[in-house]
Amino acid sequence: MIRIFGDSISGNCQKVKWVVEQLDIPHEWVEVDILKGETRTDDFLAINPFGQVPVIQLDDGRTLAQSNAIISWLAEGSDLVPDDTFERAKMLEWMFWEQYSHETAIAVRRFQKLYQEKSDDEIDPQLIPKGRRALGRMEMALLGNDWIAGGETMTLADISLLAYTRLAHEGGFDVSEFPAVHGWIARCERELGLPHLHEVTDVQV
Amino acid sequence: MIRIFGDSISGNCQKVKWVVEQLDIPHEWVEVDILKGETRTDDFLAINPFGQVPVIQLDDGRTLAQSNAIISWLAEGSDLVPDDTFERAKMLEWMFWEQYSHETAIAVRRFQKLYQEKSDDEIDPQLIPKGRRALGRMEMALLGNDWIAGGETMTLADISLLAYTRLAHEGGFDVSEFPAVHGWIARCERELGLPHLHEVTDVQV
Repeated sequence: MIRIFGDSISGNCQKVKWVVEQLDIPHEWVEVDILKGETRTDDFLAINPFGQVPVIQLDDGRTLAQSNAIISWLAEGSDLVPDDTFERAKMLEWMFWEQYSHETAIAVRRFQKLYQEKSDDEIDPQLIPKGRRALGRMEMALLGNDWIAGGETMTLADISLLAYTRLAHEGGFDVSEFPAVHGWIARCERELGLPHLHEVTDVQV
Repeated sequence: MIRIFGDSISGNCQKVKWVVEQLDIPHEWVEVDILKGETRTDDFLAINPFGQVPVIQLDDGRTLAQSNAIISWLAEGSDLVPDDTFERAKMLEWMFWEQYSHETAIAVRRFQKLYQEKSDDEIDPQLIPKGRRALGRMEMALLGNDWIAGGETMTLADISLLAYTRLAHEGGFDVSEFPAVHGWIARCERELGLPHLHEVTDVQV
């Protein structure tokens, strides 16, 4: 059985949770509290020297970190990963972009605001325009496409981007300014059986 | 024939160049000068709305961005990608880590220092400890392993991390403090037929 070490408040950890639940993969969830420093203990660093959650551990002791690498491995061969090699590469394109250009603004601002309880003045002012650019880029991709990587079905790219886009309001971003993104959040939530976090009456779902 | 839009000074673009050369993939290189704003023109944004290099374009017009997604697609089925699904996931783990925790310190500091000609005082002081932690993490992985993802042969994870690790001195980092990393750079360079950028007499290669 796969052990998942994760903090439930982390979008990166939620990605892993959604994939194992969507694919009915047997697993054990081990809660690790980032704010209490539980990713910095010797025991945890022995499992993941990167000192980050999520990380998974297999029965034979092998471990795998980085949310997008973990979900790639878990979903290999499933409907969440396109068969076509180019479509698969497009999926990865969005997943790498998520970690470089989206998570680094939207998730970082959420963490500082919500968990470190920083005031807006204490937060890097560049994070707002950077996050808005990321949401704008998604809006552009979702005008005319149901799913972010452009295919006919939900892929890991949607799951990866959903995690912090869905929580963007907690970082001070208003997703209702991006109607295609807004509708896509509800579409993903429906597909994954998640509660709707945002009002959805004004968008086509 | 694949068209590669890249700026030769960019490590992210060099990854793509190395992979097509290593695998003898026919290609055309189109030089795009970031510093002259050539990634912000209407013509370029039509090819890559992310406004970033590298991006590749296929004969049928389809495009693919994000260096690590591009090399994943180019190298699919080659010796640079492990057959084993878990080893492939470990390769991806390092590639996602590269974009999130390594490039964002080492490449960013290099760019600001070398190309934006910022003085050390003008650069975020956190980039030095962050970059040193990244190099330390690589050192830990390379003590006892020839290749970063732990397998018997060079993978895309090595190519991805080589790009900016090899140029780290241009960002003010001293790789000779990390002897296993130092030796690994020379090992990768030899495998890829690249000139040695660092003195290699004191390390085992």
